[in-house]
Amino acid sequence: MSWFRVRYRVRAAAHEIEAIAAAIALEQSVEVPRAAVRDAFIAEQIVGRVDAIRAVDESHFDIDILLATETTAGDPAQTLNMLFGNTSMHEHVQLIDAELPDELLARCGGPRFGIEGLRELAGAKDRALSCAALKPQGLSNTALADLCYRFAIGGVDFIKDDHGLANQNYSPFAERVHLCQQAISLAAQHEGVRPCYVPNLIGTPATLIEQAHIAREEGVRAVMLAPSLIGLPTFNEMVAQHLRGMAVLAHPSFSGMRMAPALLLGKLFRIYGADAVIYPHYMGRFAYSQAQCAHIADECRRPQPGLRAAMPVPAGGMVVERVGELLQFYGTDVMLLIGGSLLLAGEGEALTERTRAFVKNVHGGGEL
Amino acid sequence: MSWFRVRYRVRAAAHEIEAIAAAIALEQSVEVPRAAVRDAFIAEQIVGRVDAIRAVDESHFDIDILLATETTAGDPAQTLNMLFGNTSMHEHVQLIDAELPDELLARCGGPRFGIEGLRELAGAKDRALSCAALKPQGLSNTALADLCYRFAIGGVDFIKDDHGLANQNYSPFAERVHLCQQAISLAAQHEGVRPCYVPNLIGTPATLIEQAHIAREEGVRAVMLAPSLIGLPTFNEMVAQHLRGMAVLAHPSFSGMRMAPALLLGKLFRIYGADAVIYPHYMGRFAYSQAQCAHIADECRRPQPGLRAAMPVPAGGMVVERVGELLQFYGTDVMLLIGGSLLLAGEGEALTERTRAFVKNVHGGGEL
Repeated sequence: MSWFRVRYRVRAAAHEIEAIAAAIALEQSVEVPRAAVRDAFIAEQIVGRVDAIRAVDESHFDIDILLATETTAGDPAQTLNMLFGNTSMHEHVQLIDAELPDELLARCGGPRFGIEGLRELAGAKDRALSCAALKPQGLSNTALADLCYRFAIGGVDFIKDDHGLANQNYSPFAERVHLCQQAISLAAQHEGVRPCYVPNLIGTPATLIEQAHIAREEGVRAVMLAPSLIGLPTFNEMVAQHLRGMAVLAHPSFSGMRMAPALLLGKLFRIYGADAVIYPHYMGRFAYSQAQCAHIADECRRPQPGLRAAMPVPAGGMVVERVGELLQFYGTDVMLLIGGSLLLAGEGEALTERTRAFVKNVHGGGEL
Repeated sequence: MSWFRVRYRVRAAAHEIEAIAAAIALEQSVEVPRAAVRDAFIAEQIVGRVDAIRAVDESHFDIDILLATETTAGDPAQTLNMLFGNTSMHEHVQLIDAELPDELLARCGGPRFGIEGLRELAGAKDRALSCAALKPQGLSNTALADLCYRFAIGGVDFIKDDHGLANQNYSPFAERVHLCQQAISLAAQHEGVRPCYVPNLIGTPATLIEQAHIAREEGVRAVMLAPSLIGLPTFNEMVAQHLRGMAVLAHPSFSGMRMAPALLLGKLFRIYGADAVIYPHYMGRFAYSQAQCAHIADECRRPQPGLRAAMPVPAGGMVVERVGELLQFYGTDVMLLIGGSLLLAGEGEALTERTRAFVKNVHGGGEL
């Protein structure tokens, strides 16, 4: 028998925390009152165990529960079910960490490119990578492809669709991928420019598979998906079975659960197959703290046998002028994603110039 | 151009709420600073609009945003992206309601059986329906099938797998479905007994499709899936393409987002195809309030042209003795799900007797 540890943070009074811990251990395993467990095998080898309770402050406690690895069946969906099934509905409970069983990693596979693979795609050995976003949605495909070209000749490594770009009438997917990939090819004729266009795949599984096919046919080398939006099990199956030869950027859309971002975006997205993980950086317009951002990056890059490192991609309201701070904070194993701030520069040559300044800053370690 | 209304509840100070509302309208539509929107079409027809701001109390405000229907592309994944993409990561923002565009309903289809279809399956015209759960996990398939038989001859309408039952070594899926379906057939020889066994489908899309195939081959007439766990877009595709002829119970596992339960479990699960929606009743071991439970049931049953009503299935720590209260609260268009409380009765004949008491109570309107 093997067990894996799951950690919940619970808002409760000290006198009730033991009962709550016992209740969570039952809820996340057998889901019956303890008295209804009459089978010795179940009592000894299936029922979750409270391993530790620690006070965080006067009204919060961290509870470690041990769950039986067998209950996960090594399945990407069932593992989530065991980690945070019914308990996810308790407003006073947050899932803050988990030691994920080896069986899950063996089944899910983790990143196939990882940091090293992304570096090879970009032809960049030891500097930070750059990323820009095609937006706003509502632009025509021609306008998006023009933006893509501007970012590419400006020297950006990865040029991704905004996550809001789907298969809308004003910029249908197949045509967009064709035109943007064409823009990339044209730009690649410039010296030292080797950009990847990263289309956003979004939809039900059949749609995702169709979009992956279109992308591959067009020569795309990296794609973006939102694991929490399409479902983490679906994300993993896409990576493992339908995205061969293409690196995967994971977008955090629809990820707002009562779960620590470092666990969901850092640990789980990585194990489920993300080569790079986009998340809101603390400087931007989002509410993640500096500590949370460092923790997400740590989880993406933590050395673990048999699991490639994923590239952290801080994003969200970033500005060209603060690249230096970011590189100081993250080091060079990072991809810096800039969006709206570049677009404020305008269009055409002005945009190319602003892009070059951003890229130069990223390459130079922010010492512009 | 058409717009649909989305409502967020925001924790903020009064002096900052207007700026926050404007920021959410941008974030959930174009995701760039307003100054970067230079295109007239985008400014007029794509950028989200703040429609109303209302104070709820001193530190909470409800914000109504209008989003352009075109941005959803009528897609089940992209619609969620528009409703609660990046904004889902803000700890101070909850998505509390949305008027879903007709395009989404047209694409998703809603329940195929609905309340009427479930009544036909059970052969029950106007009484409340009953449901029991096979658990705890760790039991062998033989023991689960025996439980299934006991519940069936006790008169329960729907006998479902616990949501923790996956494809574990101790109760593999295919064998379980075979044995439980056999138990159902045997029980159906008793007079007045017409039970449905409801296996839990869980896994990646390929696994779900395989399990759906096995279930159909065994003659199963209803299945359970957890939309939030497998991803709502995947759930919808399963319902629309792979579960023909089988009714669908939706389980709320992994649903703990910063989203009102009535919107997620009531409105969205229904539109995405759930015939019945399981949710934690306020009497049980969960934290939903009485008002939230009433609201979920209302959303499930609200008359809407072209959309069948879904059956509310309150559950979670329910006891036999409180059936009367539940029926008074919900009326008869309800399915009462009882789990651990029955199992406390023991095994064999004692369990059958306890089950009969529960069923009699449900049929009699709780006047035992």
